[in-house]
Amino acid sequence: MHLTQHLKGTGYHYAPDPSSQGACTIGGNVATNSGGPHTLKYGVTVNHILALEVVLPDGSLVELGSPTGDTPGYDLTGLFVGSEGTFGICTRITVRLTRNPAAYRTLLGIFETVADATQAISQIIGAGIIPAALEMMDQGIVGAVEAAFHFGFPLDAGAVLLIEVDGLEIAVDEEAEKIVRICQEAAAREVRRATTEKERLLLWKCRKQAFGAIGRLSPSYCTQDGVVPRTRLPEILAFITDCGARHGIRIVNVFHAGDGNIHPILLFDERDAAQVARVLEASDEILTKCIEMGGSVTGEHGIGVEKINFMDKLFTADDLAVMGLVHDVFNPEGRCSPRKMLPTAGGCGTEHIERSSPARRAAL
Amino acid sequence: MHLTQHLKGTGYHYAPDPSSQGACTIGGNVATNSGGPHTLKYGVTVNHILALEVVLPDGSLVELGSPTGDTPGYDLTGLFVGSEGTFGICTRITVRLTRNPAAYRTLLGIFETVADATQAISQIIGAGIIPAALEMMDQGIVGAVEAAFHFGFPLDAGAVLLIEVDGLEIAVDEEAEKIVRICQEAAAREVRRATTEKERLLLWKCRKQAFGAIGRLSPSYCTQDGVVPRTRLPEILAFITDCGARHGIRIVNVFHAGDGNIHPILLFDERDAAQVARVLEASDEILTKCIEMGGSVTGEHGIGVEKINFMDKLFTADDLAVMGLVHDVFNPEGRCSPRKMLPTAGGCGTEHIERSSPARRAAL
Repeated sequence: MHLTQHLKGTGYHYAPDPSSQGACTIGGNVATNSGGPHTLKYGVTVNHILALEVVLPDGSLVELGSPTGDTPGYDLTGLFVGSEGTFGICTRITVRLTRNPAAYRTLLGIFETVADATQAISQIIGAGIIPAALEMMDQGIVGAVEAAFHFGFPLDAGAVLLIEVDGLEIAVDEEAEKIVRICQEAAAREVRRATTEKERLLLWKCRKQAFGAIGRLSPSYCTQDGVVPRTRLPEILAFITDCGARHGIRIVNVFHAGDGNIHPILLFDERDAAQVARVLEASDEILTKCIEMGGSVTGEHGIGVEKINFMDKLFTADDLAVMGLVHDVFNPEGRCSPRKMLPTAGGCGTEHIERSSPARRAAL
Repeated sequence: MHLTQHLKGTGYHYAPDPSSQGACTIGGNVATNSGGPHTLKYGVTVNHILALEVVLPDGSLVELGSPTGDTPGYDLTGLFVGSEGTFGICTRITVRLTRNPAAYRTLLGIFETVADATQAISQIIGAGIIPAALEMMDQGIVGAVEAAFHFGFPLDAGAVLLIEVDGLEIAVDEEAEKIVRICQEAAAREVRRATTEKERLLLWKCRKQAFGAIGRLSPSYCTQDGVVPRTRLPEILAFITDCGARHGIRIVNVFHAGDGNIHPILLFDERDAAQVARVLEASDEILTKCIEMGGSVTGEHGIGVEKINFMDKLFTADDLAVMGLVHDVFNPEGRCSPRKMLPTAGGCGTEHIERSSPARRAAL
């Protein structure tokens, strides 16, 4: 957010804009290779990082990448981004700035059902349009956001799509027209346009602060971060609804629909141990389903410690052993982010030494 | 080229299109992280690779990445791309396809001098336009290409720019208009437009087969591959002219101007040992100058064995030691691409063992 503010008026911006940018840091963005609402068109953090200064766990200082973005040798900058602190501490980050687009058009598509909204998403992408952003909010989250920000969202709609296109003035009008037509063909109740910059910013505020509005729905919440191929969004959303019903957990959804990156938000009360257990079970089922559908257990928030047990469902023992060896190049004694990201032989609670080099090499 | 042909009529294409695509392989593209004329807008090979199947030097088979492009853990796909065969052999490659743009406009800007042409490049990028391609050919190469393909290039022009914009029909006209205006302001003698698809393809054929036309100029040639910040193109081109004059070597230029990726082509006769020595000296000077200007000794063709002695001018001993350790994770005995890319203790002719793990770790 500081970087975004600092660039105001220069004609340039830093393209990745995590919804959490009021709270997150650029170092955290590098560690988890953050995405955001504009990832669909502009890519994730790694696409916008030119160089890094890194302190390795042994105290040595290395420079990765270069400000021109062209470096021979192995792409260690790309390797570091998303390594969740397991390679060392990043102390300086050189980012690539993106010129501000000449024009935006920001649309709000209002749909009776989540299925209609996902149908519209498929048709938009299928028509060859790559919106700058394509975000979905379901009825549950719309209710919370409306109570907080009074934008004028219809409370009875099944889902809304926030769609933004950017580019040349003349091109965005044509794209916006096409999108309106596609939404209408997908049985949208209504498609609104942000007619002023103020209205556009309010719409984005509603989306970006949606998580803050969840306090109106329940005392605690657990956000999941899964990925499915975009064509399977209707299926995973139906599964999530069903999963919530089975476990007696209310789940609302606000997410990067264009990327197939879901963010089901499981609502509960952390003072109730039985509810907590059901939330963990439901989360596990949803992420397992994402894997079955050919997706992943994280789109942008990383593995950390919470999802470490999914790693051996996603990777073979050989794949994990190779990652472990790469880990040991930078962090042989596990001084930085120990027990993060890579499963240890005995599960995430065991000591680092159990997955150190000689044993791992022998396992290969 | 096979992939490109295979996709004809599907509405999709594989975006990286190396000028050498009549001869190169997709495995080679992955090994060197190839660019091409459309890199300016569409990026290099790594931006279009979703997953790899790799045979490691010990014979084990690993899968890197996933077809959805979202994989947690370290980005080993990105690490493998550009590793020049030093990590193993790639046996299966999953690429990302790009939807064909709705429309193109292809322009040929004709300039009296290289300086005018580079001025136009700076102004185009400065105006916020990102052409799909922005290629320069100087007088020497234009003469050879014209003799080979009879396109109608003016033989007395100092430089020509091949500029392509793509996107929506309505947008490309506006962008093409702007580019024509900018070229005229930069004292272009003339700006031509490809008015038919046939004319566009011929223009691209001239560019892509320019290297084949060099046989008309001299019995042997050595193409260099350097990078400078785009704003320093006039300076490096002047240096190249001067360098050629000092060494008595004729140098012609055809290159990815929009990326600052130069390809000076040094003309000589390999039967003349003195000429060969002068070509090597001149090449060394040009690449050293690229480094001094904050650039790199390779934009897309890699380090291989030829440029290995530049690595310690680009990287500190610590940086190289880290790369060596990463190398050893995959290829500890140097079975694949030995003596490529990373300098050994005693120069590129010495045995791999001299840069094996224990010594390297001790050096850190």
